[in-house]
Formats: sequence, C-alpha cells, structure tokens
Amino acid sequence: MMLTEILSNYRVILASASPRRKFLLSEMGIKFDIVTTDVIEDYDENLHPSEVAMFLSQKKASFFSKSNMSDNELIISVDTLVSLNGEIISKPKDESEAISFLQKLSGNMHYVYSGVTLMTKMKQHTFLSETKVYFRVLENEEIEYYVAKFKPFDKAGAYGVQEWIGYVGVERIEGSFFNVMGLPTTALHKELLKFL
Amino acid sequence: MMLTEILSNYRVILASASPRRKFLLSEMGIKFDIVTTDVIEDYDENLHPSEVAMFLSQKKASFFSKSNMSDNELIISVDTLVSLNGEIISKPKDESEAISFLQKLSGNMHYVYSGVTLMTKMKQHTFLSETKVYFRVLENEEIEYYVAKFKPFDKAGAYGVQEWIGYVGVERIEGSFFNVMGLPTTALHKELLKFL
Repeated sequence: MMLTEILSNYRVILASASPRRKFLLSEMGIKFDIVTTDVIEDYDENLHPSEVAMFLSQKKASFFSKSNMSDNELIISVDTLVSLNGEIISKPKDESEAISFLQKLSGNMHYVYSGVTLMTKMKQHTFLSETKVYFRVLENEEIEYYVAKFKPFDKAGAYGVQEWIGYVGVERIEGSFFNVMGLPTTALHKELLKFL
Repeated sequence: MMLTEILSNYRVILASASPRRKFLLSEMGIKFDIVTTDVIEDYDENLHPSEVAMFLSQKKASFFSKSNMSDNELIISVDTLVSLNGEIISKPKDESEAISFLQKLSGNMHYVYSGVTLMTKMKQHTFLSETKVYFRVLENEEIEYYVAKFKPFDKAGAYGVQEWIGYVGVERIEGSFFNVMGLPTTALHKELLKFL
C-alpha cells in the first residue's frame, strides 16, 4: 500500500514554520497541518552536531504533550543544521555574520544534518540524515552580493541551496539534496512506512 | 568581476526548449534569449554515453552557423542523458516504456551526464558534468502512479528529480543536483568565466 493511503487515516502535523519544509512535504504528496512550536533551542555543548540535530527535533516534538494527542495524530518535527569541522554554523544574526559564515564555508566541505522525530500518542522515533556539501571558493564580491540581495538570516549556515549561491557556488553534494533544503524526503518516506 | 557583469556585454542564447533549463539559467542570474534547434539526435553507437552527451551538445550548437553570428553572441547548448550500466535510457515513447525504464532504474545507481557546448563566433568549448543518482527499490504501484500522474515522456530516463518520484525515490546523489534537472549550473558558471 502506498504511504499516502496509509496516511489518509492520520492527521499529520508538521511542527515547523519553514516555508521550505512546507513545500517539500507537499511535494511528497502528503496532506498535513502546520503547528509552530515555541521551544528554546539550547543543547549540551558536548554533543556532536549530528546529535544536536536529533536532540532539537525531539525537543520540538516534546512541545506537544502525548496525553493531549488524539489516537490518529502524527507529529513530524525537524531540526536542520550546518556543521563545519565539528562546529555548528547557525543562523546569522546580521549581515556581517552572514558574510563571515559564508567565508568559512567557501572552498570547504561541510555537513548538513537533519534530525527528524515522528511521534504519535503511543510511540516516538528519531532518525538522522546527513549530506556533504562542497562549496567552490567564493569571491568576497559574490558573498556580499548574495547576502545583500537574498538576506539569508533565517537559514542555517547563511545560505539557501535553492537560491543563487546554491546554483553558482555548490560544486557537489553527497547524499540527499532535499535534506540540504530542510527535509530529507526519501528517508522520511521510508521511515514513515516503517513507523506506521 | 562577477560573471553577470561580464555577460552584460553579450547576447546569451540558450539553445534549448526545456522549461527546466530556462528556469535553471534564470536562477543563475543570467539574462538570455531562447532559440530552439532542430537537429536529428543520432550518434555513433560505439560512443560511451558521456561522449554522446558531449557530441549531441556540439550537434545542437552546430545548428548555428558561426559565420552568421554577431561578435557579441554566445550560444549555450546542452544535452542531458541517463546511463545505466553503460546503456542510454532515453525519453520514453509511451506509458509502458516509461514504466519499464523506471523498473530498470529501481534499486540501482545510474549516471546523469550533461554535455555543454559554449560557442561564440571565434571559439567553441565543450565540457561534461556527471552525477550519480541512487534510486531506492520502487514498488510497481509507485511507478504506475508516477507515470500516470506526471507523464514523464519529455524526460530522459522517464523521471524528473524535481517531481514526486525524486522526493520519495531518490536516496542519494553524488555530484550536482541541478545537473540531474538538466543543467550543471556551478560548472557552467566556472566554465563561462574561463571561456569569456
């Protein structure tokens, strides 16, 4: 049976305000509602970036209380982050931080990790998706143009792979492209089939 | 100097009717006109699929006669194809061929090759981009649903990576994602800077 048929028995809730995640989940053919969570995104500094992504997806899921959930509700919560040499490159707070983040990513490979938590009233499952992203050497002029024009302040690592800098600056990826956009769609499809 | 500034001195012509290539070249920030070519896409069967992609991009460029070109014109022609175990998987002629192509790709890695030719009145350059694409095992029900709904008859390999089957079926890629959509954008950016 196809996933979309199985999911027709559920009320799927995407716990994310990201328009990119909304787009990606829609493209998978899944019908869902959006409920945004309000959690403080702090974590133990000793965790590896991949563990942080999983931990934060669990934290977002824990915004929902299992006891208040209906039997047919399914929560999907996600945290995506960028990691360079073991250091998390978060969302930039201003233009100059965005420029400095992109200067770090320039000419280097970084990891994009998404932690995804699936939760129903009765059970919960978390998985990780990892993609390697290789930026070519970016000119400062290019970085400044991108930041001024695209204002990537809501984006981990200060870039959107589906924006100009992704088209002209990303040489190669290894793994899921849609994970870099914010949702590892094929892995989510597979994990949902196992989970439900 | 940024590529877009250099290109402002040229009339760029994309020799392709593909709406996906038009989209990708636009996202690179390049202004261009479209001129569709009418060439017979035949080739020497002894060529490797990667050579076929380059040869066919040259053939599309040769639709334009250098002697008729203005000094400031720049032609970009592209051929993208799918290769599985050394065999070219072309555009499917009908629903049943599309289904059989996707059954071949299911559970396997294939290559997507784009040959790109850049041509001005005075010179010509061809390059290749290669991406590995890994499909998970697809159920026949999924293949039939995709083909019936998305009718991928204009697509090499009978799939669009930016359609449902790409979101739920492609587990991993190695190389450029946009190459799989039909234009290796970052490589094109780099090669244009060298060529002009």
